[in-house]
Amino acid sequence: MNPIKIIIAGPRGRMGREAVKLVSNTTHFELVAVVDHKYDSMMLSDLEGFQTIHHVPIYNDIEKCLQTIKADVLIDLTTPEVGMFHARTALHYHVRPVVGTTGFSKEDLAELEEICQKKELGCIIAPNFAIGAVLMMKFSQMAAKYFPDVEIIEMHHDGKLDAPSGTAVKTAEMISESRIKKQQGHPNEKETMNGARGANFDGMHIHSVRLPGLVAHQQVLFGSDGQTLTLRHDSYNRGSFMSGVKVAVETVMKHNHFVYGLENILE
Amino acid sequence: MNPIKIIIAGPRGRMGREAVKLVSNTTHFELVAVVDHKYDSMMLSDLEGFQTIHHVPIYNDIEKCLQTIKADVLIDLTTPEVGMFHARTALHYHVRPVVGTTGFSKEDLAELEEICQKKELGCIIAPNFAIGAVLMMKFSQMAAKYFPDVEIIEMHHDGKLDAPSGTAVKTAEMISESRIKKQQGHPNEKETMNGARGANFDGMHIHSVRLPGLVAHQQVLFGSDGQTLTLRHDSYNRGSFMSGVKVAVETVMKHNHFVYGLENILE
Amino acid sequence: MNPIKIIIAGPRGRMGREAVKLVSNTTHFELVAVVDHKYDSMMLSDLEGFQTIHHVPIYNDIEKCLQTIKADVLIDLTTPEVGMFHARTALHYHVRPVVGTTGFSKEDLAELEEICQKKELGCIIAPNFAIGAVLMMKFSQMAAKYFPDVEIIEMHHDGKLDAPSGTAVKTAEMISESRIKKQQGHPNEKETMNGARGANFDGMHIHSVRLPGLVAHQQVLFGSDGQTLTLRHDSYNRGSFMSGVKVAVETVMKHNHFVYGLENILE
Amino acid sequence: MNPIKIIIAGPRGRMGREAVKLVSNTTHFELVAVVDHKYDSMMLSDLEGFQTIHHVPIYNDIEKCLQTIKADVLIDLTTPEVGMFHARTALHYHVRPVVGTTGFSKEDLAELEEICQKKELGCIIAPNFAIGAVLMMKFSQMAAKYFPDVEIIEMHHDGKLDAPSGTAVKTAEMISESRIKKQQGHPNEKETMNGARGANFDGMHIHSVRLPGLVAHQQVLFGSDGQTLTLRHDSYNRGSFMSGVKVAVETVMKHNHFVYGLENILE
Repeated sequence: MNPIKIIIAGPRGRMGREAVKLVSNTTHFELVAVVDHKYDSMMLSDLEGFQTIHHVPIYNDIEKCLQTIKADVLIDLTTPEVGMFHARTALHYHVRPVVGTTGFSKEDLAELEEICQKKELGCIIAPNFAIGAVLMMKFSQMAAKYFPDVEIIEMHHDGKLDAPSGTAVKTAEMISESRIKKQQGHPNEKETMNGARGANFDGMHIHSVRLPGLVAHQQVLFGSDGQTLTLRHDSYNRGSFMSGVKVAVETVMKHNHFVYGLENILE
Repeated sequence: MNPIKIIIAGPRGRMGREAVKLVSNTTHFELVAVVDHKYDSMMLSDLEGFQTIHHVPIYNDIEKCLQTIKADVLIDLTTPEVGMFHARTALHYHVRPVVGTTGFSKEDLAELEEICQKKELGCIIAPNFAIGAVLMMKFSQMAAKYFPDVEIIEMHHDGKLDAPSGTAVKTAEMISESRIKKQQGHPNEKETMNGARGANFDGMHIHSVRLPGLVAHQQVLFGSDGQTLTLRHDSYNRGSFMSGVKVAVETVMKHNHFVYGLENILE
Repeated sequence: MNPIKIIIAGPRGRMGREAVKLVSNTTHFELVAVVDHKYDSMMLSDLEGFQTIHHVPIYNDIEKCLQTIKADVLIDLTTPEVGMFHARTALHYHVRPVVGTTGFSKEDLAELEEICQKKELGCIIAPNFAIGAVLMMKFSQMAAKYFPDVEIIEMHHDGKLDAPSGTAVKTAEMISESRIKKQQGHPNEKETMNGARGANFDGMHIHSVRLPGLVAHQQVLFGSDGQTLTLRHDSYNRGSFMSGVKVAVETVMKHNHFVYGLENILE
Repeated sequence: MNPIKIIIAGPRGRMGREAVKLVSNTTHFELVAVVDHKYDSMMLSDLEGFQTIHHVPIYNDIEKCLQTIKADVLIDLTTPEVGMFHARTALHYHVRPVVGTTGFSKEDLAELEEICQKKELGCIIAPNFAIGAVLMMKFSQMAAKYFPDVEIIEMHHDGKLDAPSGTAVKTAEMISESRIKKQQGHPNEKETMNGARGANFDGMHIHSVRLPGLVAHQQVLFGSDGQTLTLRHDSYNRGSFMSGVKVAVETVMKHNHFVYGLENILE
């Protein structure tokens, strides 16, 4: 079996560096080029931190890159605006995009879906590549069908500004789609201190813990007569995203359609 | 909508008592009779602990019960031998069995499946009715596809004689079906105290904790680069089985085929 | 060694029943009488649930009981008002009180302390006899000296009306006594949903989870650079109070002074 | 108040680098020199990773350093052999040692204790500077007096070779000193898979989990009638040691005696 030939856009970002490492260390993957707005015509091994990654040319211009280098997949870890342009261009050159940025508009997604359909090509856009987090959300949605009583506790380092976290809100939204709507807790419950019962999202409660030392953690607790079910994800570092990128690259090669969200390719 | 008419076999056992409570307290369920090897021709309200359950006759003989009383579902919480006889007889009288006992042979299951097919009737045999535990096992099997590194920690009261628990073994078996086989831990790891790394099942490790105060708890831990995913079920009392019985009764009415294991009716 | 002779006041309450069981099952304890506002002059074995507890007379009047029956310790599990009267009377008859009710006034406590000092007798008043909970609070107070960043998550069944729980508030108060005062979280943090960050007690945050299936649980989380420390207590049933009653009875026999709060006799 | 003047030996090791950061960032600490077997007579700011740490000379020879530079405390993060020599020399020059290496012999400790006594100087040797871990061990020892039933679960990344971890063994030893000796679990319990019940240390059980993604974690579970108490420490990175170093430096300045083990300075 030939290795999957991969171009990475945004190799010097925090995610990009992990992706370069992943592709280099995976036997059936091959890094054939990178796209970067700087360092055109240099080799990746000329840059600090990449000295051991040989024979990988750098391109400023994605079109030139795709015209010159034969590839199967583009991993894009840039920005939403650039990501859209890169995905569209890659599909034009019959290269399947795996894009890890958020912020696509509905129109963007619809346009990409249409191109994929015409070209019969796979394309995966995933705002969250941490498989563990995506499974936690997916399982929460499944469990909520049987256990409508649920609370979410998310825990992050105390440098985080917003509460609740984006993942907690996304989890609550996914649960809302599957559970019978209900207002939880005792109808006459009362807070003797404001905020004790957390935030109320569609009748379920969300609690945000902030402490130094913590990284990024979330538990979803389901309760029912005589039992509780707890789903918990702990993320310790950025490496957690890479198993998701790997699955996405492998999956996009078998697809001839568009997918939004890693949860839709995990079975 | 008419309520689902239900016969309970084994009403005086620990599970049976909970089932009587469940059926009595559920609006769209109706308890129409019970089958017990004692107290023939008496009323359930004559027995201690059931004084408030009116108009429910007791039968010794399941055939006589089924001939006399019109029912939709038989909930059987007796013993494997009796359970098989009851299920077969119920199907003969066009009543759908929901059976909560373990120990059926392959031949038993095949026979019931065949009868269901012929009669186009639903039948559910479930060794474990705790939905939370069944979801934990099902999610574990799903997660193991992406996270082949997994350990199981089960925790029970210190009156429990066998280790590991049946649920832990069943979980490990289900995981084995979906994960890429691997021997976990460092190839050169070594125990400086015997047993520290737990039991080895097909390359994954199982740990059994026994302490007074505990009831029945299990966690399944998945680890991968930079992240962990934990699935945990806590069972505090027998009430935990009843949500599963409820789902099984509702589901068996829509089925015209045989199902073994609650995991196969949870979506 | 002679067994410790014990009178129990309030034997038919939920705590009282557990205490009767404890005293009966402990080799070096002996139940010599009970005080109850009903059933004067009967024997405890005449009452439902106590048939196996022989030779224990019932008294309505504590004075008459103390005059007639030689005892070392009075375990009082009645009400605050009655408890105060019982404790005072017991000390008068040289019997050491172990009282498990809340709601004593400062004056009550001062009066009892004075009597203990004069009579050189031990007396223990403990609003919470669950040793595990008391240790969690005590350890939290100790840890807060080194880890001023702390959040409390308490979790109870959804029949509970007030949030946060009394134990959570008491824990926060004890922590406040030992930690350097600080407002936790990022100074610019902001809630995009009201209440997400929980209740604010003296700069630390308290979160209250309510779900069916839960009993009474609390975690105290401390965070500091690169590490977290978690103290957790799970209470599954009333039996959890009895180890505290046992320690209190054993300790009160060695004391000749007054103690308020189990935390002050645990070393 | 004058800042505490500090020399760090071993500044380029993993712990040493963190210590340099700690001392530089603490207002009432001042880094006055470092001792390193390389780079004599250079400045610390000449070395990679220390460019922002100005005015700190490097010495090869500790004696010369102590003769030239006035200091209050020596933080030694080198090796056991060097550490002993450094501590002895520092005390000779009236500088208080805070040493973070393991492997001191009983004779070494006795010698240092004697010097401290003669010179009336503080000295702290601590094999583990993670305050959270030390508190977990200390609290475990205290809790075991009341809860003799206890199991330890330690969890580490799967690159770790030995099981159980040194911290788990140390915890078990400390618990053994305070608990009533007992063989836990049911007397007739039996393993249907070898090792399920973990390692047996003095009647208590230890379980070692190894998974990729994990860092260094330990829980100590106590069980008793109707309740459990759980003490858990999670270490995410080396920063966790620094709060312990800070407390040790502050404490050693107030001491005029020798201390072995951080647990003996935490109150």
